[in-house]
Amino acid sequence: MTSAASASLIEVTHDAFDLRGVVRLTLNRPDAFNALSEALLDQLQAHLAEIAKSDARVVVIAGAGRAFCAGHDLKEMRAAPSLAYYQSLFARCTKIMLAIQRLPQPVIARVHGIATAAGCQLVAMCDLAVAADTARFAVSGVNLGLFCSTPAVPLSRNLSRKAALDMLLTGDFIDAMAAKQQGLVNRVVPMDSLDIEIAALASSICAKPREAVEAGKGLFYRQLEMGIEAAYQLAGQTMACNMMDESALEGVQAFIDKRPPDWPHTSGR
Amino acid sequence: MTSAASASLIEVTHDAFDLRGVVRLTLNRPDAFNALSEALLDQLQAHLAEIAKSDARVVVIAGAGRAFCAGHDLKEMRAAPSLAYYQSLFARCTKIMLAIQRLPQPVIARVHGIATAAGCQLVAMCDLAVAADTARFAVSGVNLGLFCSTPAVPLSRNLSRKAALDMLLTGDFIDAMAAKQQGLVNRVVPMDSLDIEIAALASSICAKPREAVEAGKGLFYRQLEMGIEAAYQLAGQTMACNMMDESALEGVQAFIDKRPPDWPHTSGR
Amino acid sequence: MTSAASASLIEVTHDAFDLRGVVRLTLNRPDAFNALSEALLDQLQAHLAEIAKSDARVVVIAGAGRAFCAGHDLKEMRAAPSLAYYQSLFARCTKIMLAIQRLPQPVIARVHGIATAAGCQLVAMCDLAVAADTARFAVSGVNLGLFCSTPAVPLSRNLSRKAALDMLLTGDFIDAMAAKQQGLVNRVVPMDSLDIEIAALASSICAKPREAVEAGKGLFYRQLEMGIEAAYQLAGQTMACNMMDESALEGVQAFIDKRPPDWPHTSGR
Repeated sequence: MTSAASASLIEVTHDAFDLRGVVRLTLNRPDAFNALSEALLDQLQAHLAEIAKSDARVVVIAGAGRAFCAGHDLKEMRAAPSLAYYQSLFARCTKIMLAIQRLPQPVIARVHGIATAAGCQLVAMCDLAVAADTARFAVSGVNLGLFCSTPAVPLSRNLSRKAALDMLLTGDFIDAMAAKQQGLVNRVVPMDSLDIEIAALASSICAKPREAVEAGKGLFYRQLEMGIEAAYQLAGQTMACNMMDESALEGVQAFIDKRPPDWPHTSGR
Repeated sequence: MTSAASASLIEVTHDAFDLRGVVRLTLNRPDAFNALSEALLDQLQAHLAEIAKSDARVVVIAGAGRAFCAGHDLKEMRAAPSLAYYQSLFARCTKIMLAIQRLPQPVIARVHGIATAAGCQLVAMCDLAVAADTARFAVSGVNLGLFCSTPAVPLSRNLSRKAALDMLLTGDFIDAMAAKQQGLVNRVVPMDSLDIEIAALASSICAKPREAVEAGKGLFYRQLEMGIEAAYQLAGQTMACNMMDESALEGVQAFIDKRPPDWPHTSGR
Repeated sequence: MTSAASASLIEVTHDAFDLRGVVRLTLNRPDAFNALSEALLDQLQAHLAEIAKSDARVVVIAGAGRAFCAGHDLKEMRAAPSLAYYQSLFARCTKIMLAIQRLPQPVIARVHGIATAAGCQLVAMCDLAVAADTARFAVSGVNLGLFCSTPAVPLSRNLSRKAALDMLLTGDFIDAMAAKQQGLVNRVVPMDSLDIEIAALASSICAKPREAVEAGKGLFYRQLEMGIEAAYQLAGQTMACNMMDESALEGVQAFIDKRPPDWPHTSGR
């Protein structure tokens, strides 16, 4: 039912979790705790660009081996100590983080192990996150003298200020339940239910018309950066256009008729 | 003790909960789960405009029958499929939502049943919300192919990003306790204590001088859209003016004198 | 091990909690519940200005006697009823609140008793806060007819909107656990563990290189007021510069070498 690409730094699984339209991107450097080397970042960017143009419905980002992702590749970083290199590296990483937010498809982080530094940032940037109860999260760069400044951007937009600063200044881990209470992940389940929960979430999204999901995700992030009046103006315009979609007209009519909508294009099991 | 207006789409009760100055607006289309038809929206807007100029102190928005509010009237919407109509409909609804935020008086949502789509948006836009433990909340438009874009505006300003996106992308219900934990409602009580809790909250606000409450509510929302330095400047100016009010000078003097303030104008039981 | 300054409105303890680099500022008007008189505000501002230029690593703000801080000095305020005076008073207080946020060093509130009005604001403005389980929090000005407008600025940036408005409109106290759940404090411990917890938190921060902590704290608040793209740009630049610090290059190398970093300048026990 699944088709895995040849072994590479990102393992791509189409129709993952036995769900048509779900693409799983597995960070695949298990011996390096899936650290985000330049080569891995390049592959991740290329896959996201391809998915953006595809008919995929949902993306799941996962990690191979014991960790979800341990952040940047520190050996690689340390080997090239120049300001220009670091500026370029963080700019490249930022581009990918923003590509996740701008992707038409919702992106779910599947966090089964540790997520640290830019790995924790990756969780924060995903639209949704489901964690195993054994997952742990930290922005631990400060322990090495490198404050997690870029991870602070999405962390401070997911957690309350003091909770984010606590993590950033101490570098301490928080567990999955704390991550849920603080807003970093949506759901926490036992490890052996992780894929079931991810599949249920992805399946629910796949059952919705593509147009509504794509327009809605885009609107969500754009309106967040506006004052409430401008936000409402954009939202009203987005919703009026969405209502004119064939799928919405049919969906609303089906609701009135008390029957399931006749949507040819949504996917699922 | 209460005076109910003649049956209409909005039932208006003055001195509700046996409290002088408390106006209860009950959405009154119980057979349609209080769906926000154009006619109902028009009446709601007219009542809010009237209250804004009145000496009312607190507004409570409630729903008749089993539901709080199920959102827009889908039959009405589906009957007029044109972009111009939908733009105008959402603009009208937005105007009312913003009128709640701009009302001089605090507005409390009394949520006893389901609040979905624009009904959930209404809860989010109220200044405060008290729910029965049986209440449930969803932004379920996406289930019909219509992403709840306008509800997303206040939802994303009340809940964390991931919690809001989970609701918006899945359309799933959350229960009252989750709504409290996530920031959508303030208090959750058993159904038979709902009016007692609402009355206690409204009574507490009625006991404060009108000037302080009105200036404070206005300042609260304006400063939220500013950087912290501009926010402080506006807040300092607001508070200095507030301190010059007769009621504040008397209130502070009474505190120093260890006696109750002599405020002729506050209302209560 | 500790050195206390001569008795004054702010008691200064260097190397507090037996930790080199930790400065404890104790509000020292216990008979007035540490109300923020003009003289106390002046001393607080002077100490913060001095600390900003010093080699201190962490600041702890505490209160002498039973209360943490009961806000402005109401007798002093009431004695000079003029708009110009109140404008100047709130501007002065704001200057100090912003100085806390702009201080290079992290500031921890040590909340052992009540924190009300501007005392609650002070907790909200600190980067981190640890409370005894007996601490209580309120923005109670509205009870006197004086809405806590300036406290609303940081309160609404720490708590969800409805939680902040509930406190601001009712003036009611919340307990320490609610304060933690709502984002106002980071940690809640029994009274007899309060100093142990503060010391652990301060010690953890002291163990990090000064450059990383200072750059990180500054970046954190600046990027919060930006759109996400501008925030990322500033964060990437900050992090690239931070990585070029001797301490970060050594910290990362030490991590690669699996040895403790050789940092001469960090302090601790």
